This record gives sequence, structure tokens and C-alpha cells, in this order.
Amino acid sequence: MTDPRPLMETLDEQACWTRLQNSEFGRLATAAGGQPDIFPINYAASGRSLLFRTAQGTKLAELADNTAVAFEIDHYDSEGGWSVVVRGDAQVLRTPAEIADAEGAVSLRPWIPSVKPFFVRITPTAVSGRRFQFDLDTTLEGTL
Amino acid sequence: MTDPRPLMETLDEQACWTRLQNSEFGRLATAAGGQPDIFPINYAASGRSLLFRTAQGTKLAELADNTAVAFEIDHYDSEGGWSVVVRGDAQVLRTPAEIADAEGAVSLRPWIPSVKPFFVRITPTAVSGRRFQFDLDTTLEGTL
Repeated sequence: MTDPRPLMETLDEQACWTRLQNSEFGRLATAAGGQPDIFPINYAASGRSLLFRTAQGTKLAELADNTAVAFEIDHYDSEGGWSVVVRGDAQVLRTPAEIADAEGAVSLRPWIPSVKPFFVRITPTAVSGRRFQFDLDTTLEGTL
Repeated sequence: MTDPRPLMETLDEQACWTRLQNSEFGRLATAAGGQPDIFPINYAASGRSLLFRTAQGTKLAELADNTAVAFEIDHYDSEGGWSVVVRGDAQVLRTPAEIADAEGAVSLRPWIPSVKPFFVRITPTAVSGRRFQFDLDTTLEGTL
């Protein structure tokens, strides 16, 4: 009752980008042929875009069918959490100049040792985020 | 070199369900009108289905357009992680009997205090998961 912070608040775009820049793991949603799919990915923010690497596989095939994507990062603990969602367009980088630019723009943490030769850049069309505290006194009826 | 565990392994279906039963937070991917979207949600496993609650809003509108969904949970720390992805069909529960059954089947943790009167059940068509260790000695070239 005495805590002035709201239980949920919207993150402004700069706060969303700060979180995108400070994270390295998220989930990519695709929609090839009307079927949603979701992939955990490592990524890096590069300016106002996101970069990730992938192998020749399902993700790349789905992006060839439909370049519209959504991407999400979040963090939760016992007190609350936040999430940021990016909607945008994903393009496989094709030219040596684009690829060199991507390699130079980001420092990608070593991860699992599979060969993932393709760079994909997500160009956002919308970025949104929210932050909230859990309200553990709330009854079930109005929650979840 | 002496660790016999593979860097990545597939989780069998039972291992996926154990993780789905022991988690309460994931991300729902939808694909209304060919546009992927992604929503952090609280959920509960109920037998071999998943239940979540929602308000009259974007999620519900997108599911009215396309009931195909994907759902993901994951956990990562400095040593490795795992993820489980469920693909399936999402249906809003309509009858009092369905809703009573859903309310009785799961114990939903109190969460943020917004009114979310609709129950949605995801009936899986495919469940997959994987677990991996990070390989911090791997060079950038073959990773991410």
C-alpha cells in the first residue's frame, strides 16, 4: 500500500534498447506458411538493429518464406521482471561488405560449436517493453 | 576433452514434459495474418496440455485469427542451458464445464493483478527440446 511504484509500467524505447544492448540471448518467432515457430537464439544489438548467426536449417528456411519476425528478451526473479519485444523484418546478409560490417559491429560471445555461417539482421519496425512487480497478495481470481 | 557429455543433446518427450510441468513462465508465439508476435505468459501444464489465462486483448484477437501457436520455455546459466518448444493449437475455453475443469486442474501462482477472465488451452501437436553446455574455448568463427 505504501509502495508508490506501479505494478506494471511501460518501458520507453531507450529503456528497451538499453536492455537489448545488455542482453545476448532471446527468442525469435517466425510465421512461415501461417505456422508460428519459436527459436532460442544468441544475438547482438548493432546500432538500432539486431544480428544473429544461423546454419542452413529451419530458421533460414522459415525466413525465406516470411521475413516478418518477432523477437523477445526477458528477465524474471522472485520480485518481478521485464520483457522487451521487437517486431521487424529479418534479412540474410548476402554481400561481403554487409557480412564484414556485421562481423565488425558486434562482439559475439562464443557459444555452442556448431557452424553457423549465415548472418541475419533484424531491422525493427516496432519495439515495446514492460516491467512489473509480482503482487503475491493478489488472489487467484484476478491474476495470471 | 575428457568430458563425455555431448555439447548438445536432444531431450526426449518425457524430459520435455517434466520441464513443462516444473516451469510456470514461457513465451507464446502467434501468427495472425502472417505476422509473428510473441508474448511472455504464465502458464501451467495440465496433463499433456498447457493452460494460460488472458484478458480481452491482442493475444486473444490473434488467436481468433489463427489458432496455431508455438510456446517456449528455457533456462540458461553460465555453464549451459536447455529449451523446450511446443507447437500446437490454442483454443479459448467456452463452456462452464471446460472452465471449471481448467480451474480445478491447475494451481496457478498469483501474478500481476490484471483481470484475465479467459482460459486458453494449448493442445500440442509436437514437443521438442534440447540441452547444451557452453563451450567457452571455441573460437568465434564456428559459434553462436
